[in-house]
Amino acid sequence: MARILLVTGGARSGKSTYAEARTLELGTPAHYIATAQAWDDEMEARIAAHQARRGPEWVTHAEPLDLVKVLRETDTAPRLVDCLTLWLTNLMLGEKDWETAAKALVATLPDLASPVVFVTNEVGLGIVPDNRLARDFRDAAGYLNQWVAAAADEVILTVAGLPMKVK
Amino acid sequence: MARILLVTGGARSGKSTYAEARTLELGTPAHYIATAQAWDDEMEARIAAHQARRGPEWVTHAEPLDLVKVLRETDTAPRLVDCLTLWLTNLMLGEKDWETAAKALVATLPDLASPVVFVTNEVGLGIVPDNRLARDFRDAAGYLNQWVAAAADEVILTVAGLPMKVK
Amino acid sequence: MARILLVTGGARSGKSTYAEARTLELGTPAHYIATAQAWDDEMEARIAAHQARRGPEWVTHAEPLDLVKVLRETDTAPRLVDCLTLWLTNLMLGEKDWETAAKALVATLPDLASPVVFVTNEVGLGIVPDNRLARDFRDAAGYLNQWVAAAADEVILTVAGLPMKVK
Repeated sequence: MARILLVTGGARSGKSTYAEARTLELGTPAHYIATAQAWDDEMEARIAAHQARRGPEWVTHAEPLDLVKVLRETDTAPRLVDCLTLWLTNLMLGEKDWETAAKALVATLPDLASPVVFVTNEVGLGIVPDNRLARDFRDAAGYLNQWVAAAADEVILTVAGLPMKVK
Repeated sequence: MARILLVTGGARSGKSTYAEARTLELGTPAHYIATAQAWDDEMEARIAAHQARRGPEWVTHAEPLDLVKVLRETDTAPRLVDCLTLWLTNLMLGEKDWETAAKALVATLPDLASPVVFVTNEVGLGIVPDNRLARDFRDAAGYLNQWVAAAADEVILTVAGLPMKVK
Repeated sequence: MARILLVTGGARSGKSTYAEARTLELGTPAHYIATAQAWDDEMEARIAAHQARRGPEWVTHAEPLDLVKVLRETDTAPRLVDCLTLWLTNLMLGEKDWETAAKALVATLPDLASPVVFVTNEVGLGIVPDNRLARDFRDAAGYLNQWVAAAADEVILTVAGLPMKVK
């Protein structure tokens, strides 16, 4: 079974930087699997800033929806998936069945030969959101994180750029 | 003194599942003390989903306000109180004196013979809420968590379904 | 180099109380550097409540913006800076260059002879805020926390009034 690492944390807590370093320790070149879709200028700027930070040791793939396919196609080197929360957003905004997709993703992990580092977000530690969509999203994000964490060999929570071992 | 355990965490972080397992380890049948009140259909669905997951090893009590009374009445077997945050919501929405109620709860704990596992929520790690009521609620929730944690023998933070030891 | 401690956590998680105790362990009298500005009655009440809790072992300084100056001027005894998040708020609301100010603060730390305990807030673990200003603020707060944490000798996350060691 592949080595599966889940890196979770709040916004700007250093998740991606930490996850990138851990992925490159597993071997280079590594695959960077970006789930972000540029819905607006702000998101486009965030994606550009992320890409600018990464060096030539990365092969970048953009895949907003079909993570199982891209993980199978890149199964010859370490992969970083950044991030599960945007993937979930894409599924929910596209009115896909996120629960089936999430379970299919978790079910695929034992088949993979090369390691996968997943980045995700903690979104459930604030006040209950006013609107239903936000509540449904944070519930889904919580379940997704639980399912991937259960399948992971290691789970890290980043706080202020520093890793805390969860599992 | 009874063994007191506090399980805190974000939404859908696996708090209840973890707390249920810990309670049943302490003895069965155990008392499940539900503080939830069904204010609307969404809440009713959440309560039903919670109940469906629990098995026959539980005796369920619904008590939205008087936790001290129900803890004294059930003091012959382990209890799970799920959750303190909804209890606080009930107190505040009912315009009760939550601070006096919280202090009375904490003052009762040393008198109890059987263990109590409390579930609560972390609600203060997001952006400062726009509205005053939400700010007052998150302040109150923070103090309540501190007071119960100070009286607890063990405090666990759940992240992605996994326990992190706080105390 | 001075001993630098960063205490982070959610609202009402016991950050200030913990940080005050740690500062006083380093020597008394200690300097209390308050960054809060009373923008409204609610804030004024919070500041008054904080001050009422502190005893005569503190020399209080109010400094909403120029932390470098006050840290240099008070460099003969332990300092508590409470808190970085309000300092950032002051910089951003005053349309200052927060990033330059934050980097200047971090660059000053190695020059200081006396220890500094910083209090800050975790604000990035909730749902993505609706408005742009709140998103920019939580991004800035995340980077500020990372930069200070990288320069700190010790980083603590408070949960329910209890310290968790991050670094």
